[in-house]
Amino acid sequence: MSSVAAGKHVVVIGGGFAGLQAAKALARTGADVTLIDRNNYHLFQPLSYQVATGALAPSEIAIPLRHVFRRRKRVRVLLGEVGGFELGRRELAVTDPGSGEQVTLTYDQLIVAGGSDYSYFGHEDWRSVALEVKSLDSALEVRGRILHAFEAAELRPDEQEAWLTFLVVGGGPTGVEMAGQIAELARETLAGEYRAIDSRRGRVLLVETADKVLSAFPNPLPERAATSLEQLGVTLMLNQTVVEVDRDCVTIEDRRGAQTQVPTRTVVWAAGVTASPLARQLAEASGASVDRAGRLTVEPDLSLPGHPEVVALGDMVSVRDPDSDRLITYPGLAPVAMQQGRYAGKMVAARLTGAAAPPPFRYRDKGMLATIGRDRAVAQVWRLHFSGRIAWVAWLLVHIYYLIGFENRIVVMLRWADSYVTRGRGSRLITEAADLPSKDRSAV
Amino acid sequence: MSSVAAGKHVVVIGGGFAGLQAAKALARTGADVTLIDRNNYHLFQPLSYQVATGALAPSEIAIPLRHVFRRRKRVRVLLGEVGGFELGRRELAVTDPGSGEQVTLTYDQLIVAGGSDYSYFGHEDWRSVALEVKSLDSALEVRGRILHAFEAAELRPDEQEAWLTFLVVGGGPTGVEMAGQIAELARETLAGEYRAIDSRRGRVLLVETADKVLSAFPNPLPERAATSLEQLGVTLMLNQTVVEVDRDCVTIEDRRGAQTQVPTRTVVWAAGVTASPLARQLAEASGASVDRAGRLTVEPDLSLPGHPEVVALGDMVSVRDPDSDRLITYPGLAPVAMQQGRYAGKMVAARLTGAAAPPPFRYRDKGMLATIGRDRAVAQVWRLHFSGRIAWVAWLLVHIYYLIGFENRIVVMLRWADSYVTRGRGSRLITEAADLPSKDRSAV
Repeated sequence: MSSVAAGKHVVVIGGGFAGLQAAKALARTGADVTLIDRNNYHLFQPLSYQVATGALAPSEIAIPLRHVFRRRKRVRVLLGEVGGFELGRRELAVTDPGSGEQVTLTYDQLIVAGGSDYSYFGHEDWRSVALEVKSLDSALEVRGRILHAFEAAELRPDEQEAWLTFLVVGGGPTGVEMAGQIAELARETLAGEYRAIDSRRGRVLLVETADKVLSAFPNPLPERAATSLEQLGVTLMLNQTVVEVDRDCVTIEDRRGAQTQVPTRTVVWAAGVTASPLARQLAEASGASVDRAGRLTVEPDLSLPGHPEVVALGDMVSVRDPDSDRLITYPGLAPVAMQQGRYAGKMVAARLTGAAAPPPFRYRDKGMLATIGRDRAVAQVWRLHFSGRIAWVAWLLVHIYYLIGFENRIVVMLRWADSYVTRGRGSRLITEAADLPSKDRSAV
Repeated sequence: MSSVAAGKHVVVIGGGFAGLQAAKALARTGADVTLIDRNNYHLFQPLSYQVATGALAPSEIAIPLRHVFRRRKRVRVLLGEVGGFELGRRELAVTDPGSGEQVTLTYDQLIVAGGSDYSYFGHEDWRSVALEVKSLDSALEVRGRILHAFEAAELRPDEQEAWLTFLVVGGGPTGVEMAGQIAELARETLAGEYRAIDSRRGRVLLVETADKVLSAFPNPLPERAATSLEQLGVTLMLNQTVVEVDRDCVTIEDRRGAQTQVPTRTVVWAAGVTASPLARQLAEASGASVDRAGRLTVEPDLSLPGHPEVVALGDMVSVRDPDSDRLITYPGLAPVAMQQGRYAGKMVAARLTGAAAPPPFRYRDKGMLATIGRDRAVAQVWRLHFSGRIAWVAWLLVHIYYLIGFENRIVVMLRWADSYVTRGRGSRLITEAADLPSKDRSAV
């Protein structure tokens, strides 16, 4: 196989789970592969929320992309922002985020896995106040802001109520995990470390528009998760929607239109998904359509309609069902992205070598997991479901297994074992990534 | 002792080696201690240059100050900037770096250990281009810029010369260590990871005004260090002074006034020391004097002239010699700061309890160490000196011993063992702390 694809150039955009698997599959074909990402690392995103509360250090869940491919001499990794698709000429532009300099690349086959972002319900101005924890940079900012809130309360105990109120928006897995982590931080890790305040009095509010958390999980897991959260001290605010976000206050509204103002200075956003802007760029370049969440519509084999040489996948696409012609939106989970990445790699390899194309993509659902805290998790595997410690152990094993691509998994396991025993968090640093509003550092 | 000092309030400013030792000594006296720092962590500063090249993660050399004192219920840790000394009323102001809010504290005894900063030869405008690696935030920025330079060269191989030239200013221990680390990064860690460039062709220049590096070390160690650096591929530019720093170019001048322009986009600064601005604030508040480097002149017992209740120490002071009345400027080393911190703690405890004051401070010089790279170091212990592998092992043992206050020393040792064997670096991430000039991240 390796000689047949030689001399062909495949460009893969995005070094997340989808792009990484696609590039790995293609690395074995003899084609020249260029993998482009705006970060120099692959992030194990399901654990980025643990960076946001100091449980793990960034380098424990992020690995340099070019280190992954260091022995694959036909794989070139580039750091850059992608844009300017010229599908007719099979060209695109890559911009260095540091210097702004731009180069043009040509390709024979193109794989686009740009991922997704949070939508903020159309309120872009909330973004600077209500940070997300999906990206590493933002998770580091959240870590700094949460830790700073406790520090500010210790300095000004008279203002501790607003500083010690933490509001998480969105009751999906990320929101549930964040709320549980902040509650554990306040009640266990930081307990006894302050003198003017009691960190255990910190309030964690979880706001969710639906009438339950983890609504993608089967019953009775949402109720189990709710009970676990309440045991950790999280206040659930179900059937409530955020209607205003200010630096000192969040306004929420219930289904009858009654509003509540919550004084808080720390808001974490985990609600509403929108596809990468690359989806719209590809739609405009090709005439394909995007759905309400900005996802690009692709064929059953993940290719762009009218452009079999372009494959788009992961969180940024909806897939046309070959049977019903309806659109399938897969959940934004790592297993979906990995399966689509491997599929895309195989399909493009088949195109390059003239082999038979694989049948349309089908997702093999192996289950879902969400952790709430130490010893608390919910899991659904096929038609079975678990909660409590057994689900938490399953969560631990699955994540250790998938971190095996990471060379520092021993370090991560040691860290986890240590936090489990001591209830500590080893990375509780406020660095400049915290991006606190005022940063005049003229004195100590 | 513990009952006598009860009810007294000691404020300690600065959580570096000096302030930490002072606070630890005072924690045993029964006095109320408030320790203030603008960061929430104590940094093991002798290793911050290793963060700047990705060899260690920030959390491996930084530990939250309040975690250090979590069991000392009379020690309160505050995150804040300090200023507004009112010595007559024994008051000072603490400002929250996040919200800008201010509180006033009163003290019975005050210990000030504000440290030092680089002076940039009076050119403050160079600071944003030529970053230092003493602070953790700046070391993270340096890490991002060095790694980004290789990425930019891979994207634009036609411009690789400027991107792959790294200029380090200052031939003291920090400059020597940084130059050696960048050379190892280019020649070993990154070798084979790029496709369009050869990272081993990266040039590392070390500029020093004097005629040798490590001039504080006895002969023949400076020459040994120079040989080690050259073996690693570092180009020494001795008898040269930096006269201009631009974003794309550094101008250096030799002793005869001849200038050379070096096209480079990555400059690390490790030359010229100036005391913390707190030294000048205390001088103005008390009428004491400061020297040319901004250091406050203190009495032989480290107290502020005319204010025995105020003690200043570490890099920010010169000490009056009780015998000759001349000023002693101790080297800016961790052992000096630690010994002065313990002395200050003992002296203030004696004042609080009415015990006899200890004799004037004397520094017990145990030696100096500087590492250049794997297996390469120089060491001076009493009148003995070592170089090569034996000095490197001594360096390793000393640093592991002093990291023993850190709970993650096992992790650090594993990391070091791993890098030694694989010549890898586990924390090669470009995060937003890199603060690259252009940060428009609209696409992947």
